[in-house]
Amino acid sequence: MKGQTPTRPDDGLTTRERRNRPMLLVHTGDGKGKTSAAMGMALRAWAQGWPVGIYQFVKSATWVTGEYRALTTLGEATGDVTFERMGTGCTWMRAAHGGEVSAEEAARLAWAEVRRGLAEERHRFWVLDEFTYAMDYGWIDTDEVVAALRDRPGTQHVVITGRRCPADIVELADLVTEMTKVKHPFDTGQKGQAGIEW
Amino acid sequence: MKGQTPTRPDDGLTTRERRNRPMLLVHTGDGKGKTSAAMGMALRAWAQGWPVGIYQFVKSATWVTGEYRALTTLGEATGDVTFERMGTGCTWMRAAHGGEVSAEEAARLAWAEVRRGLAEERHRFWVLDEFTYAMDYGWIDTDEVVAALRDRPGTQHVVITGRRCPADIVELADLVTEMTKVKHPFDTGQKGQAGIEW
Repeated sequence: MKGQTPTRPDDGLTTRERRNRPMLLVHTGDGKGKTSAAMGMALRAWAQGWPVGIYQFVKSATWVTGEYRALTTLGEATGDVTFERMGTGCTWMRAAHGGEVSAEEAARLAWAEVRRGLAEERHRFWVLDEFTYAMDYGWIDTDEVVAALRDRPGTQHVVITGRRCPADIVELADLVTEMTKVKHPFDTGQKGQAGIEW
Repeated sequence: MKGQTPTRPDDGLTTRERRNRPMLLVHTGDGKGKTSAAMGMALRAWAQGWPVGIYQFVKSATWVTGEYRALTTLGEATGDVTFERMGTGCTWMRAAHGGEVSAEEAARLAWAEVRRGLAEERHRFWVLDEFTYAMDYGWIDTDEVVAALRDRPGTQHVVITGRRCPADIVELADLVTEMTKVKHPFDTGQKGQAGIEW
């Protein structure tokens, strides 16, 4: 449904400008659905014909997920979808780096790539999946991320997912949703299932 | 990532049986991402080659969303995707009913259809989008829904989305996630945007 705005802001923007404002969204919290919701949003972006870029910071490049299959299939059907799994198994990183990369090195290389892409306006809709961990672990400087996001040119929407999102990113974000576990089957011994968890 | 189970249950099931247990999932709360996360999960189900059925209880049949375009495109590429928008504009309901249907009638007809489908094992993965409202408004009897879900045959996973999920559904569910708004741009006058909200 089209969103209703309770207040009309005094920001000097037209309604059209407010409809085209670049958005920074965060899906955080300990519950399920952070990545799935970002992928669901990517479907909307794809359907708009926007260039979509999905960068997964932790997922192994050898693990073929349903979202990878689906988004790449959509990109082949029509449009412009980039889907990079930039964990330690990432092929181009290993090639560029001349061998194995650690999780920390992979995260730094992935961020350098995303930062370049943002400066170049490479996509209109970005998913930085499980990106919070790299900041939380101190592998990537949060101030640098804030600056790169704040100064990104054009209309580039960015969705960041992951637990423990740094406060400065929450502060910068336009929309923050927390996914909270009310009830989880792993608590009672349920196993993860293909088609459900990946 | 594959789920880790903290406890090993004494339920007499094998690990394989626990991996194939039919799941009932609920996405509720006032925050964003309930529908998007269900659609993201549908990508995983589609990638498994499962018959996927998405039933939207409130969405108008004339409103073409990004998720509708994406999931139907995937279904055309390969697999088995049913996507029904069963709001008041639903064409087959109007035909079956001989004219206009109210929101309440549409919800009742939609539920009757879903109930039949569950009994027939029509899909392996179901999304009942914004289904909670029909129960919350008293249009559909929650006890009837609980019975139909509890007694569904085979391995049919069901995701229900919407605010104010009835307690009996939460009780029955295997996994419940609450999406909580931490920060929302509509609060400060941001307009809903194509590609973001739909």
